[in-house]
Amino acid sequence: MNLEKVFNYIDEHAEAFVQDLVRLVKQPSVSAKAEGITECAKLVEEMMQGVGLSTKILVSERGNPVVYGEVKSQTSGKTMLFYNHYDVQPPEPLEKWDYEPFSGKVVNGRIYGRGVTDNKGNLVSRLKAVQAFLETIGDVPVNIKFFVEGEEEIGSPNLAPIVEAYRHILVADAAIWEFGGTDRKGRPHLYLGLKGVLSVELRVEAAKKDVHSANAPLIPNPAWRLVWALNTLKGEDERILIKGFYDNIVPPSADEIELLKRIPFEEEELKEELGIEGFLKGFSGFEALKALLYHTTCTINGLFAGYTGKGSKTVLPHEAVAKLDFRLVPNQKSDEIFVKLIRHLKKHGFGDLEIIRHGSTEPTKTSISDPFVCLVAKTAERVYGKEAVIYPLSAGSGPMHLFRNLFGYPIVSAGCGHPESNTHAPNENLKIESFITGTKFIATLFNDFAHARL
Amino acid sequence: MNLEKVFNYIDEHAEAFVQDLVRLVKQPSVSAKAEGITECAKLVEEMMQGVGLSTKILVSERGNPVVYGEVKSQTSGKTMLFYNHYDVQPPEPLEKWDYEPFSGKVVNGRIYGRGVTDNKGNLVSRLKAVQAFLETIGDVPVNIKFFVEGEEEIGSPNLAPIVEAYRHILVADAAIWEFGGTDRKGRPHLYLGLKGVLSVELRVEAAKKDVHSANAPLIPNPAWRLVWALNTLKGEDERILIKGFYDNIVPPSADEIELLKRIPFEEEELKEELGIEGFLKGFSGFEALKALLYHTTCTINGLFAGYTGKGSKTVLPHEAVAKLDFRLVPNQKSDEIFVKLIRHLKKHGFGDLEIIRHGSTEPTKTSISDPFVCLVAKTAERVYGKEAVIYPLSAGSGPMHLFRNLFGYPIVSAGCGHPESNTHAPNENLKIESFITGTKFIATLFNDFAHARL
Repeated sequence: MNLEKVFNYIDEHAEAFVQDLVRLVKQPSVSAKAEGITECAKLVEEMMQGVGLSTKILVSERGNPVVYGEVKSQTSGKTMLFYNHYDVQPPEPLEKWDYEPFSGKVVNGRIYGRGVTDNKGNLVSRLKAVQAFLETIGDVPVNIKFFVEGEEEIGSPNLAPIVEAYRHILVADAAIWEFGGTDRKGRPHLYLGLKGVLSVELRVEAAKKDVHSANAPLIPNPAWRLVWALNTLKGEDERILIKGFYDNIVPPSADEIELLKRIPFEEEELKEELGIEGFLKGFSGFEALKALLYHTTCTINGLFAGYTGKGSKTVLPHEAVAKLDFRLVPNQKSDEIFVKLIRHLKKHGFGDLEIIRHGSTEPTKTSISDPFVCLVAKTAERVYGKEAVIYPLSAGSGPMHLFRNLFGYPIVSAGCGHPESNTHAPNENLKIESFITGTKFIATLFNDFAHARL
Repeated sequence: MNLEKVFNYIDEHAEAFVQDLVRLVKQPSVSAKAEGITECAKLVEEMMQGVGLSTKILVSERGNPVVYGEVKSQTSGKTMLFYNHYDVQPPEPLEKWDYEPFSGKVVNGRIYGRGVTDNKGNLVSRLKAVQAFLETIGDVPVNIKFFVEGEEEIGSPNLAPIVEAYRHILVADAAIWEFGGTDRKGRPHLYLGLKGVLSVELRVEAAKKDVHSANAPLIPNPAWRLVWALNTLKGEDERILIKGFYDNIVPPSADEIELLKRIPFEEEELKEELGIEGFLKGFSGFEALKALLYHTTCTINGLFAGYTGKGSKTVLPHEAVAKLDFRLVPNQKSDEIFVKLIRHLKKHGFGDLEIIRHGSTEPTKTSISDPFVCLVAKTAERVYGKEAVIYPLSAGSGPMHLFRNLFGYPIVSAGCGHPESNTHAPNENLKIESFITGTKFIATLFNDFAHARL
């Protein structure tokens, strides 16, 4: 099929597409704070219906609704599924944003706002690709399904029962995951797998209220206990000290190592962007990239206790909190790591700490020899005019394992992002140009997938 | 002198005295945030003039103004000086207050508000004692001087040059310090000395912005560095690990130990109030009291890094902050401790941490054999009708050493507080009854001091 009509439609409606994305960005949807979730799910459903999808809200006993949408092809029996999420990270720290995080402000060809790249931009680009086909050709080249959840940013804690319950409608031949983008040289980056993640919170409570720090010789200080407990988790050499933490890890295969070596890792640009002189443990080049993709981690996401304002306050806090995440690589399991963490703290005398489990996902990946991987890469290379960069695993996380384990279909992640998108950070933004090219890429992929012999 | 007229005046004007205190509490004066300082100093000066003192604002090159006030006696050559402060601790955490912290709300015979006990209630009780004499007798029994500073709660960092510059007007025969109160049995507590305090802030910066925690294998995490650095400062056995930290400490004398043994330490009440099962290191009874008054400490006042909101956020923070205070006992010196802290961090590989010095004061005390101590105790026993409890040293801190070192006059601390005053904590409050009795105590002390042979 000649895609000229479809591409023209996309170009002619670019301004309207941006406006629809801005509208979605303006709707806060912070899952960590249960802020704007229902409203955002409704807006996504409305946008799906607007482009011609039939929709359904998928719910289970608890958790945010999943917005499901589909459109059947009159000409093809193949089905492509998209996994996206409408929830976003909390926008804090607010004072570091140049524009209001939910303003959707357009400046110098970029749309600014929390979630504009992760993941609303990708979602809208995919919906608009469907719209472009339906409005110009009157059909889509393949059956298309959208699965858009609302708890990705908190580790998808309630997703498993929904995927289980609706497994009959989630059958497909292949799936495109939520994220991806181009690098500084315009090369499209594709990802074949995800690390797992386990998010926990450690809380220490002592006295039932803050007291004057003059009482320090007698009153237990939860901030000190938290420091001592955290110190037992990881050494200054970055080695995680939880017994059995590194058990079951499968190192990258020879094929994966070969693929890794072809990834142009933009090391100096990354260092410069972040203003750091070097990576941890002196990693660089291939070793740095391998660490980024294949090393498991234990990260302090947040610390809080007592007085954190300007100047000083002679107070002895009554509670202290640390938020942590563990990134898991094949074949670590979040349940096992959680149990090991509990055992570790108990063994080191910190059985009094409250350990709250937030979300978790498992590591998973699609084989680099799957024909769908090759198809997506070739399509990307044609649309972007540059060699595709294929990551056998990604440093990020998500509930991909739920789909991989149940259905087994190949899943590749691709999207509209760019290196200065600032996902999960202040001033998150999306270049309009990337957004529109991303829409064309998805449209092309529909067509290529319809005609491929897989 | 028969004090009946003076006491009657105090009783008859109790309601108006409370209103004046409420007015002062309603004026925020948070030195840590430079909030309301000028306005509060002005209000204090106005109140001094209102009761009949002549005033002067004492300033040096930097720092908040000191409000000085004095009134001369027509009958006595003796001079009593009061040290107070009009600044208050930050009110945070705001959500833990039952009433607005600067409302001065009166509920069930208590005035609520940040600073109402520490230190505005004591200041107003002293001013009102002067007013009661001037309005009834037309004179004060001794010369009276007020020195009311505005940076006590941040460690009085700029006070030394002011005390030096105005040393000619700060001469006196004895002084009453800012704080004190009664215990659960109504016994007045008097304090003869203060620990020193050194407040510092440790800051770690890594990347120039927060990044997605997926980058954890490569990007240094300042929260981990802070944890590891803090862990080198103090062990789980509460032993401070800074080299030479315990040098020069003078243990309590035999006389001081005797005095300590007579202090009715309300151990169970304190534990119950704070909801803790036991004190640190299993201290109890005399040992607990001795630790409280004579042990040096290293306290985490606050911790902050990354995301501290609800739920989880997979972020890698770019900075981490700890606020600490060290309580110093005779004869530790804050300058020496600060240098030892810097050396310690450098030696342990944490030379990259930024170390900010906030305020500091030195430990000091008046001898328990000074006749002024005996006089104050006897006056207190008469007014309160209970045996006075004398602390040779207090667990708290303040710039008492500046006055003790320059002038050498005896200084005793006494005030209107009570065990549930919640100083430095949410719901700080002062019982109106304590406030009025405290006013009578000061009035009586003027008279006793005038007639004593010291």
